[in-house]
Amino acid sequence: MKAILLTIGDEILIGQILNSNTQWMSEKLTDLGIEVSEHLTVGDREEDIARVLKSTVGECDFLIIGGGLGPTHDDVTMETLSRHFKVPLQYDEEWVSRIEVIFKDRGRVMSENNKKQGYLLKDAIRIDNDCGTAAGQHFQDQKTEIFVVPGVPHEMMSMMNRYILPFVVGKNPQEKILKRSLLTTGIGESALADRLDPFVQKIRANPNVTLAFLPSTTQVKLRLQMKSLSSNASAEFDGLSEELRRLCGEDFFGFDPSTIEEVILTALKSKRSKLALAESCTGGLIAHRLTQIPGCSEVLQGSLVLYQNELKQLELGISSELLQKNGAVSEEIARAMADGVRKKWGSTFGLATTGYLGPTGGDERAPLGTVWIALSSAKGITTRKFRFESDRMRAKERAAQAALDLLRRSLDASSIV
Amino acid sequence: MKAILLTIGDEILIGQILNSNTQWMSEKLTDLGIEVSEHLTVGDREEDIARVLKSTVGECDFLIIGGGLGPTHDDVTMETLSRHFKVPLQYDEEWVSRIEVIFKDRGRVMSENNKKQGYLLKDAIRIDNDCGTAAGQHFQDQKTEIFVVPGVPHEMMSMMNRYILPFVVGKNPQEKILKRSLLTTGIGESALADRLDPFVQKIRANPNVTLAFLPSTTQVKLRLQMKSLSSNASAEFDGLSEELRRLCGEDFFGFDPSTIEEVILTALKSKRSKLALAESCTGGLIAHRLTQIPGCSEVLQGSLVLYQNELKQLELGISSELLQKNGAVSEEIARAMADGVRKKWGSTFGLATTGYLGPTGGDERAPLGTVWIALSSAKGITTRKFRFESDRMRAKERAAQAALDLLRRSLDASSIV
Repeated sequence: MKAILLTIGDEILIGQILNSNTQWMSEKLTDLGIEVSEHLTVGDREEDIARVLKSTVGECDFLIIGGGLGPTHDDVTMETLSRHFKVPLQYDEEWVSRIEVIFKDRGRVMSENNKKQGYLLKDAIRIDNDCGTAAGQHFQDQKTEIFVVPGVPHEMMSMMNRYILPFVVGKNPQEKILKRSLLTTGIGESALADRLDPFVQKIRANPNVTLAFLPSTTQVKLRLQMKSLSSNASAEFDGLSEELRRLCGEDFFGFDPSTIEEVILTALKSKRSKLALAESCTGGLIAHRLTQIPGCSEVLQGSLVLYQNELKQLELGISSELLQKNGAVSEEIARAMADGVRKKWGSTFGLATTGYLGPTGGDERAPLGTVWIALSSAKGITTRKFRFESDRMRAKERAAQAALDLLRRSLDASSIV
Repeated sequence: MKAILLTIGDEILIGQILNSNTQWMSEKLTDLGIEVSEHLTVGDREEDIARVLKSTVGECDFLIIGGGLGPTHDDVTMETLSRHFKVPLQYDEEWVSRIEVIFKDRGRVMSENNKKQGYLLKDAIRIDNDCGTAAGQHFQDQKTEIFVVPGVPHEMMSMMNRYILPFVVGKNPQEKILKRSLLTTGIGESALADRLDPFVQKIRANPNVTLAFLPSTTQVKLRLQMKSLSSNASAEFDGLSEELRRLCGEDFFGFDPSTIEEVILTALKSKRSKLALAESCTGGLIAHRLTQIPGCSEVLQGSLVLYQNELKQLELGISSELLQKNGAVSEEIARAMADGVRKKWGSTFGLATTGYLGPTGGDERAPLGTVWIALSSAKGITTRKFRFESDRMRAKERAAQAALDLLRRSLDASSIV
């Protein structure tokens, strides 16, 4: 079954507001096995709304229309629907008295404007709004079930959860989509696509299975989907997912919505390890990311964010000779930072970054974009060199990710031993 | 002149990704006086793309098509455009060699897949991608100028800024909208709205002027807009903007796209001051935010991110008696951290945070959500106490902002003296 989402609102078209409602609705509908085939946004103008109604009603099973139900003169959704479907508006006394109660509860008096929100489509089902004054509506035209909801996110969500999603489930009980996202890092999209090509070729034979590559600055997400048509679909899906995970090898680190931070903290906790950071070019980003996770203080001791060379001497005893001889961005300094902070704080692991992130800087030994990462443990020190692009913020993100990934791989490896 | 934005991508329709590209494009185009009349999103399927091309080409002056230019099998935008407009695809040797250089620079080998990105529409203008492998395109059909851009946000933005927006300006030079966004922090939306009410009443008389309140977790942005209809509009607009700035008082910190980090770093540079941070609950976020700005190393020395109490003793000599007597989240510990890091590193300013951010934790003296902030300088130590909500990430953002804002206000105040 197909759904189309129609958003009405000038504030979206001028870029004042991000259209997050359609993302939320799309995810919910997709989870129920509904195919969302189109998102449309038009302004608060009758001719534009009427035009898209003409092209969508009858073309889908569900049409959800959001926005333009407010009390002011620029909200024209109800009048437009009334004229387009030739259904008169009817004053709903009961709804208006409910609006009055809402205002009373908030210690305010209802304005005359709000009475406009009492005019609803005759014979359509009213979808009550339990946290605002704009009522929703539900009616049918041709084969399309049409729902009208307010643009205010929590009011829309409440109506979707209470009324619309249960209705959709009732209409479409059988089909379900199995969905799993595998997270990888440390490998680019193209290299991963090359490696997974045999798998992609194989699933192409099955129209019920799809695989999407979703790259971002720091990772590539693989979304595997399968239409669940038979009772053994779930086992088949698990088999495909496991095959994919094996092909990803060490570049796989978890399933969405897990994060690399969580994976690392869980592994460190299970080993009762302590982590110390010494950050130069990442400037606190690694510590910031890890401290987003509740309970991180069990394993993360802290971070020495040392942005100036004198502090590397003062805090970690790195000699000015070593700095001068190798340059601040060098394997030797990364090693000294990782090892220094681990020993200073008595940690299991010391993780360090040093690099030139730009937009300017760099020297002959370490040109702009060079980043050295080091991980120290009782077993020794591992280092990695990277060369990132010149965009400062993206390079910083990639450097932090590369450092976290070095630690993750070392934790994985040691758990296999 | 009218623009329509067409997004192509299953990941948007299934709700995996928020369509933030269209908001960004809409804002930029609106600023140039272009009416964005519609947003459309369809999946990576030829028939869906062809259907919306039919309904939009010829109906607007500018059509911007974003997404589906990647190297994998599910990216079908170019093939679809080729068939729809009956323009063959041509292998662009030069572009492929550019892609190869991009891979080489990153120390990787181009995969076979990427060659697909060399097939471009014959006779269309190539819009170079300066940070990725998918080239953009520009061509005309009927009265509509058609631009094709990648879905990756920074690649799209770069093409918009370098090529598309300048082209649009050239086509539509006359109408202009004057626009300025004033940034405030440390005051809530309602309190600010109350203070600005007389100003809002005054501008309501002028239909060419609008003021919007755009609140986020850490600040309230005020967007002032005016249609520029006469030669003295610019002076009138500057007058209104200045009036608004005065009303915001000390809560105003700059004009968009400036940030509080930039304002602080500029002020510190002009005073040749050095800043040291000691972060507990903000976990490196303050350092991370400041190190996003190029050149911050001139004034930011670093940050001691001390997530465990033993480190507060080890690094800053804060006695266990003081910790036990007052608790780690207390005015005394915030003072000792700010003063301690300043003296240890010989800094002009020491800025410190300590708090319980949840989702659990807190004690009788400092319940969940309590944050203490301290700023130390040669003049003495200033402290502030906050009580934030229990959402960890939002509370952390607010704590970092509150700390930066305490420093900003102290810099402003001293510059007035």
